[in-house]
Amino acid sequence: MAAFEHRIPVMFQHCDPAGIVFYPRYFEMINATVETFFAEAVGWSFGQMHVAERVGVPAGKMETDFHAPSRLGDVLDWRLTVQRIGGASLDLEIAASAEGEPRLTARVTLILVDLDHMTSRRWPEPRRSILETYKEE
Amino acid sequence: MAAFEHRIPVMFQHCDPAGIVFYPRYFEMINATVETFFAEAVGWSFGQMHVAERVGVPAGKMETDFHAPSRLGDVLDWRLTVQRIGGASLDLEIAASAEGEPRLTARVTLILVDLDHMTSRRWPEPRRSILETYKEE
Amino acid sequence: MAAFEHRIPVMFQHCDPAGIVFYPRYFEMINATVETFFAEAVGWSFGQMHVAERVGVPAGKMETDFHAPSRLGDVLDWRLTVQRIGGASLDLEIAASAEGEPRLTARVTLILVDLDHMTSRRWPEPRRSILETYKEE
Amino acid sequence: MAAFEHRIPVMFQHCDPAGIVFYPRYFEMINATVETFFAEAVGWSFGQMHVAERVGVPAGKMETDFHAPSRLGDVLDWRLTVQRIGGASLDLEIAASAEGEPRLTARVTLILVDLDHMTSRRWPEPRRSILETYKEE
Repeated sequence: MAAFEHRIPVMFQHCDPAGIVFYPRYFEMINATVETFFAEAVGWSFGQMHVAERVGVPAGKMETDFHAPSRLGDVLDWRLTVQRIGGASLDLEIAASAEGEPRLTARVTLILVDLDHMTSRRWPEPRRSILETYKEE
Repeated sequence: MAAFEHRIPVMFQHCDPAGIVFYPRYFEMINATVETFFAEAVGWSFGQMHVAERVGVPAGKMETDFHAPSRLGDVLDWRLTVQRIGGASLDLEIAASAEGEPRLTARVTLILVDLDHMTSRRWPEPRRSILETYKEE
Repeated sequence: MAAFEHRIPVMFQHCDPAGIVFYPRYFEMINATVETFFAEAVGWSFGQMHVAERVGVPAGKMETDFHAPSRLGDVLDWRLTVQRIGGASLDLEIAASAEGEPRLTARVTLILVDLDHMTSRRWPEPRRSILETYKEE
Repeated sequence: MAAFEHRIPVMFQHCDPAGIVFYPRYFEMINATVETFFAEAVGWSFGQMHVAERVGVPAGKMETDFHAPSRLGDVLDWRLTVQRIGGASLDLEIAASAEGEPRLTARVTLILVDLDHMTSRRWPEPRRSILETYKEE
């Protein structure tokens, strides 16, 4: 019902010689948005996941549409919603806009995996229930 | 008929705390493969394009499937083919494997743009004819 | 007299397979601290500088001591002070700590340059006077 | 007596909105030069070190002088020499030039550490003897 929101300013390190965001940097921002969502909304930080519990959430599939370029000094408003929660998978939509103008929309499938065996793991409670609350109607 | 091939070793800078390639680094490799394709196959270096001619090839759309993780020390064989050449657009398939095992497949739509006005531009000859030769049958 | 302070959390994208911050990412953080200092303290954003006024502040010299490694989840407190203002040069000390434990100290010389001719430029007023207020006693 | 040499082209991903190499990317190149030196000259790949033997070579100290900017399309010739081998430390000089014009010189102190305990380790034979052969007279 709710969306998770996260703001990232476009900085010098994100921009290319054309003066616009270099698209691999958008994927760093997408990862940072997911990481912040897990820490702040799900209560499961990447430090806790990767180091203490030896689980991770690698991407299985990503589809990204780039609507308009972003420039140095723009402030990107990221909006994350849950689309579908499978056994071990999680489909997210993550979109960025600046002053209301759409910049990109990504649909990402993450897989919860055991890092030591690289096998999928079922989303545990209470994480699953929290993820449910970020589903879009 | 031909595919463009490019080899990139997985180095320390590409890997995350899980010991596998961090996916934004794959997109840097995809960009490096496209950049090398333009320089070596099309004869149109990014330096010539961006600085001298003020044109660029930002991504309009990307779809990526991640088949299996890559690790420090793997050597990735990238294979690029042209799928479709539009007026200003270019659809590429860019896939990586290591010792024959598929790691990811990306379908990318690039748009040729005038960087000063951010308007699309028609692929000029003889670039268009060279791109045709990398079409998959 | 005052120091400029800036907080950056250590995120997944900063860390290497050893689980600690990969040192090139510290230099991205140093640049982000300088960029934020210019925008917030000096009132001269990198967007305004690079795009509108065509000036930049490339590094001429850097000395960095790494005191202890930083890990995923650490929160780095960056502290920037002005050491010396030359005609076109600016000597900064930029240090990071986490919960009071020193992590690194960098001494950086920046040069104000005209980007179109790559020639040095004298720090203009009122920027110079503002920089003076960040000098350490 | 010998220097280790490594060539890296300046690509789009290294360059900033000023059209020159963004200095954190130089540090990625320095790390790549060190990593290639260890793999090819010392016979000790970072994969072998970090994953199999759980040792690493974090930087303890770095001093870098930037002589002139590098641009998209430049080809950087990196030259690495050993300055001093301590018990657990290794002092390197790593310099880059393009067509003979100096671009930067870095003096780096690396420390061999046990990654599980973050304690220093003495350079083992035969690695130490190989490192000796890259000492500058």
